Amino acid sequence: MGLKPNSALKASKTLFVLPSLFTFLLVGSQGENTAMDNVATERRAEESHRQDSANLLIFIMLLTLTILTIWLFKHRRFRFLHETGLAMIYGLLVGVILRFGVHVPRNMNNVTMNCSVNASPATLLVNVSGRFYEYTLKGEVSTVKGHDVQDDEMLRKVTFDPEVFFNILLPPIIFHAGYSLKRRHFFRNLGSILAYAFMGTVISSFVIGLVMYGCVTLMKAVGQLGGDFFFTDCLFFGAIVSATDPVTVLAIFNELKVDVDLYALMFGESVLNDAVAIVLSSVLLHYEKQSRQARHGHGETTALVEEQGIPPSSIGAYQPAGDNSHTFDATAMIKSFGVFLGVFSGSLALGVATGVMTALVTKFTKLRDFPLLETALFFLMSWSTFLLAEACEMTGVVAVLFCGMTQAHYTFNNLSPDSQDRTKQLFELLNFLAENFIFSYMGLTLFSFQSHVFNPLFIIGAFIAVFLGRAANIYPLSFLLNLGRKNKIGSNFQHVMMFAGLRGAMTFALSIRDTATYARQMMFSTTLLIVFFTVWVCGGGTTPMLSFMSIRVGVDSDQDSSVTVSDGTQHRNTKHESAWPFRIWYNFDNTYLKPLLTHSGPPLTATLPACCGPLARCLTSTQAYENEGHQHNDDSDELVLNDGNATMYGDVTVSTDASGTLTTNHKHLSASTMGITSEEALDQELAFGEHELVIRGTRLVLPMDDPPEPTMTLPPPPTSPPPFSDPFSDPFSDPFSDPRRNRL
Amino acid sequence: MGLKPNSALKASKTLFVLPSLFTFLLVGSQGENTAMDNVATERRAEESHRQDSANLLIFIMLLTLTILTIWLFKHRRFRFLHETGLAMIYGLLVGVILRFGVHVPRNMNNVTMNCSVNASPATLLVNVSGRFYEYTLKGEVSTVKGHDVQDDEMLRKVTFDPEVFFNILLPPIIFHAGYSLKRRHFFRNLGSILAYAFMGTVISSFVIGLVMYGCVTLMKAVGQLGGDFFFTDCLFFGAIVSATDPVTVLAIFNELKVDVDLYALMFGESVLNDAVAIVLSSVLLHYEKQSRQARHGHGETTALVEEQGIPPSSIGAYQPAGDNSHTFDATAMIKSFGVFLGVFSGSLALGVATGVMTALVTKFTKLRDFPLLETALFFLMSWSTFLLAEACEMTGVVAVLFCGMTQAHYTFNNLSPDSQDRTKQLFELLNFLAENFIFSYMGLTLFSFQSHVFNPLFIIGAFIAVFLGRAANIYPLSFLLNLGRKNKIGSNFQHVMMFAGLRGAMTFALSIRDTATYARQMMFSTTLLIVFFTVWVCGGGTTPMLSFMSIRVGVDSDQDSSVTVSDGTQHRNTKHESAWPFRIWYNFDNTYLKPLLTHSGPPLTATLPACCGPLARCLTSTQAYENEGHQHNDDSDELVLNDGNATMYGDVTVSTDASGTLTTNHKHLSASTMGITSEEALDQELAFGEHELVIRGTRLVLPMDDPPEPTMTLPPPPTSPPPFSDPFSDPFSDPFSDPRRNRL
Repeated sequence: MGLKPNSALKASKTLFVLPSLFTFLLVGSQGENTAMDNVATERRAEESHRQDSANLLIFIMLLTLTILTIWLFKHRRFRFLHETGLAMIYGLLVGVILRFGVHVPRNMNNVTMNCSVNASPATLLVNVSGRFYEYTLKGEVSTVKGHDVQDDEMLRKVTFDPEVFFNILLPPIIFHAGYSLKRRHFFRNLGSILAYAFMGTVISSFVIGLVMYGCVTLMKAVGQLGGDFFFTDCLFFGAIVSATDPVTVLAIFNELKVDVDLYALMFGESVLNDAVAIVLSSVLLHYEKQSRQARHGHGETTALVEEQGIPPSSIGAYQPAGDNSHTFDATAMIKSFGVFLGVFSGSLALGVATGVMTALVTKFTKLRDFPLLETALFFLMSWSTFLLAEACEMTGVVAVLFCGMTQAHYTFNNLSPDSQDRTKQLFELLNFLAENFIFSYMGLTLFSFQSHVFNPLFIIGAFIAVFLGRAANIYPLSFLLNLGRKNKIGSNFQHVMMFAGLRGAMTFALSIRDTATYARQMMFSTTLLIVFFTVWVCGGGTTPMLSFMSIRVGVDSDQDSSVTVSDGTQHRNTKHESAWPFRIWYNFDNTYLKPLLTHSGPPLTATLPACCGPLARCLTSTQAYENEGHQHNDDSDELVLNDGNATMYGDVTVSTDASGTLTTNHKHLSASTMGITSEEALDQELAFGEHELVIRGTRLVLPMDDPPEPTMTLPPPPTSPPPFSDPFSDPFSDPFSDPRRNRL
Repeated sequence: MGLKPNSALKASKTLFVLPSLFTFLLVGSQGENTAMDNVATERRAEESHRQDSANLLIFIMLLTLTILTIWLFKHRRFRFLHETGLAMIYGLLVGVILRFGVHVPRNMNNVTMNCSVNASPATLLVNVSGRFYEYTLKGEVSTVKGHDVQDDEMLRKVTFDPEVFFNILLPPIIFHAGYSLKRRHFFRNLGSILAYAFMGTVISSFVIGLVMYGCVTLMKAVGQLGGDFFFTDCLFFGAIVSATDPVTVLAIFNELKVDVDLYALMFGESVLNDAVAIVLSSVLLHYEKQSRQARHGHGETTALVEEQGIPPSSIGAYQPAGDNSHTFDATAMIKSFGVFLGVFSGSLALGVATGVMTALVTKFTKLRDFPLLETALFFLMSWSTFLLAEACEMTGVVAVLFCGMTQAHYTFNNLSPDSQDRTKQLFELLNFLAENFIFSYMGLTLFSFQSHVFNPLFIIGAFIAVFLGRAANIYPLSFLLNLGRKNKIGSNFQHVMMFAGLRGAMTFALSIRDTATYARQMMFSTTLLIVFFTVWVCGGGTTPMLSFMSIRVGVDSDQDSSVTVSDGTQHRNTKHESAWPFRIWYNFDNTYLKPLLTHSGPPLTATLPACCGPLARCLTSTQAYENEGHQHNDDSDELVLNDGNATMYGDVTVSTDASGTLTTNHKHLSASTMGITSEEALDQELAFGEHELVIRGTRLVLPMDDPPEPTMTLPPPPTSPPPFSDPFSDPFSDPFSDPRRNRL
């Protein structure tokens, strides 16, 4: 399923961090007679390497400058401009300098030759006086428009292959977003988040697409349109500018500690709609490509298929029925929607699968004694998700997002405290570098990009469309959601969500991926302006907006529940506001998945039906029994201190209130009941819900720095067997397992 | 000064992590008539991307497997095989599978065409029916030898461009080596280390070169030589196999806690001789290249020079006088030695310069409040060293080594504790990944490399030569050094150093860099075998060797001095054993550089002459006064607890002995005297040396976990002004500087 939105020519060199570096290792005997050629080639190669280093140095200097300025801003508590906005400004300045200050004329060592090949092959063997050289296709060179900018070697050199963004820079950003998701609040608002992210993004794409189609039609009437611009292009534009950015606003939200529900809604929406937008836009591209192919006749397609050795079915399946590609074709669209679902769920499944595998590996080995090994494993497994998805022709970025969420939800609990810090810090750093790199490149590109098409009418239309699209996403959906939600999304929340829908890295990466046609160039230039505007104006205006809308700030996310408890009417809603699918999931996760994949949760021996006893014993780690029983070791500390998911479990097991009275561990009861019928369990769960929450409210008032050891003195549940001692997994039986001694 | 040892053809694509990804951004209008071509190209590109992902996945799986096995080995305390040896074995297995198990026939989409160009240009413009495509040179394809392996797409794909090693994988390894150097023991043995690393490596290269020349002559006589093998090739081989690897043995040394002096000698030697070998081999290549060029006549050279726009002087300067390049030419050799010194010292200066810059930035900004920013800055600055050196046509790897050492010596003291951990962990991880990647690639390459030349005679000769070369390095130099050293290098130490001279990543990277000629191919294959043998046999035999040679193990590096004190005769030597240049440096560093670049050390106001008072006040941070005076804050803790350099400073200022009697802060006196004549200062230093050492010996008997606060109650030196309060740099005057509150 070839769904990657590559344009024909640019994609010819799909670059990649290391695979791009896989190259032909030179062999063959080398005669002395060509020594002069070699010296010349070598010198050129050295020169090119030297210049590449110098160019990369520019970016590193830019980032260094950004870091120093960010520090100054943070130090002085300036909040009107976020670091990403700053990175853009610096990029802009360097772009101006490169464009107008430096002019390195292009080194014309190229040799032009005519040849009789009918297509441009990816690899070319050139016979130079009896010796064969291999050449790879870099791309088409525009000879029609004689831009003088084009000849500028410097500008040409600082321009990256757009695939760099998808294959190198976006994955760490998206993984970090998934890994740092505050899961408790995310899950509490899951329904609303999914609605905004899926339905909202689709609505927004269509609204923007329609408005832009109107705009383009107007432009054509006025005679302002310099090239083709089809309806599919409009929809594509809608899809790429519908991806909101989780970075800038949320950094501010985080710093100001705004209301956790608002935070969760915005963060969840912006993270997930990136995934939706990327799959949606690739489906649209695919749709367009297939219809283009269809229009060129089946004969040619079959020829292609045979030439490439690709089974015809894999192409035929998505061929739209109609012949004219650029008119809207409902059947093809529905088919494409099927593809969308397939790719999305496939990527999701891959991401979750590698996450689960990592969790199992970290649970059943004692890798936690060696934080370096553990961190390396974690990093490699997370990276392999991306590669696996790309190798299966799914969307790597989407897989990475769900892998990050799974890693955070399960694997994180199995890591040693040292590795927890290391992995968090590693991805934080990678995210920071990648993000600032993208934003400074964005600034640079406004001047260094060589074929901008700025059309005032289109730009104005796009700004209006983006505004309308966002409004059509937020307000109607909020209204519908409020019908179902007990904890309403207030109108001030809606206004902030409307206002703070910034466009960032994903929008940029999607729009720069293909800039081959006039339509795409105009889209790219306009997108750049939209990103600049939203980051500077909306991003900068977020703090005033929050105070204007009188949104609560300074809320500690962990104490939020207790705040909710105090007003008496909302405290029941935390669990109830979620729809039943979530509640089933929540129970299933807590009783089966968490115990299976992590050291936390009740032992599987307690939750699985009796017939699975031996299996359950194999899969339950000794820590789980210890968590259950009287012993208090490091892991139980960890269990309580981890934010988010541990607290979720904490809701259930650590259910003694501050006064020290012991409540029954009702979750276990409900869990073992659930072995019989899940309906009953749910009822029970709901019945206990209220009681539970009051307890949690009380517990959470305690300062979190003080691990509630006394609350761990629960009696073992009646169904749990005596902890059996596995010499392999017991941390106390192995004298060599002391992490201090064996640390690498 | 184009000194990078690129071979003519391979170097044509000098790859690089990101610059390689700088590529031509496609522009130009795209007609509908070529839609079919585009679809075909796109599909090919997708297919290629998919396969690249799959190939990279192989390596990631290999690394994951290695990690899990390492864990098992560490868990079970197997020491006979180090992780790098393990990675090689796995690589070997995958290599066998790829070679004999999978056969993907090469996709013959290449189009062969004859053309009239007389040289192979780096970039080729091909006119395909009126549209121009840009192609880049990948390399020469061997058409002479019709290997069927060559056609295997899979093997071709898993073969990296050798420049990847130099530009991506070696820098983090070498930086980590510099950054993790135990500076105290390193500096104590500096003279010996420099002797082994510089003289030893040169001796070893020549001995190996000569032995190999004998071997090659023999082979020629017997008729075993299948191609040219010149004397310069022999010397080149000597240079590349003289680089010993700091990884494998030292991991074992570290785990066993062997004698610190032995550790320092081996680590220092192996780290520095990597730098020596890389520069030496590139000089040899340069020498060869230049003489080849000279032989082809001056006329052609000038033509080349004019064509390339390179000033003739830059090439002419290294042209050897003789005409026959492959005979030994003394004048050219001496000239090359000058180049060697130039490149080495240039790279060193660049590395130190960026290190110093980072130290200044981290000292004079309060970036330490934001560990993320600080870590990012540190990472970027360290990376920029490499790029800067490459852009200046120095050797990036050497620059990175000295940058690492400078960062560790100065910048590390200015970092917040959080950043200290983060940077150490980050580079530890990068080092781990890069190292295991190289070693598993090494294993893979034994089977996947497509033109091995295994010549039994050459291989036997090489093993003998390597043995002799190592012996000629260690034993004579140790004898000479022992004449000067008070703390003799025992014969058991010498045997261990002889035995444990493993060859690793650097040797491999240098030998794979150029495999174009018969000689280089034979070298590469032989080098591979040498690395395998030394890593498996010598690496595995290190533990038995240590016990056979009755080397002390289980020595705590920090308590070593006290151990030395106990035997009464050696305790004076710690400082005295170093030669006078080191002592001058030591004083200069402590009185000027450390106070200037870090927060530790005596304030500059105390050490600089009075006339520089205002300047000194500007450059001295408040922490320095605090360290000096009565206050006890976080930084003074840090000062004492940091290993290595802090203790070095501790030798001097914190000079109260355990009984609590106060000794004068004589270092300050010597320092201020040094402002007048350095001769006097040295005498004074030597006079105080003995007294000082007894004190240190006593102090170090105290457990290091207990920071010696009472020793900080020194009276401020008479010359120091009252600490003036700079609101910007005073950590207590700024309410926002609390790192907990402002953390990102």
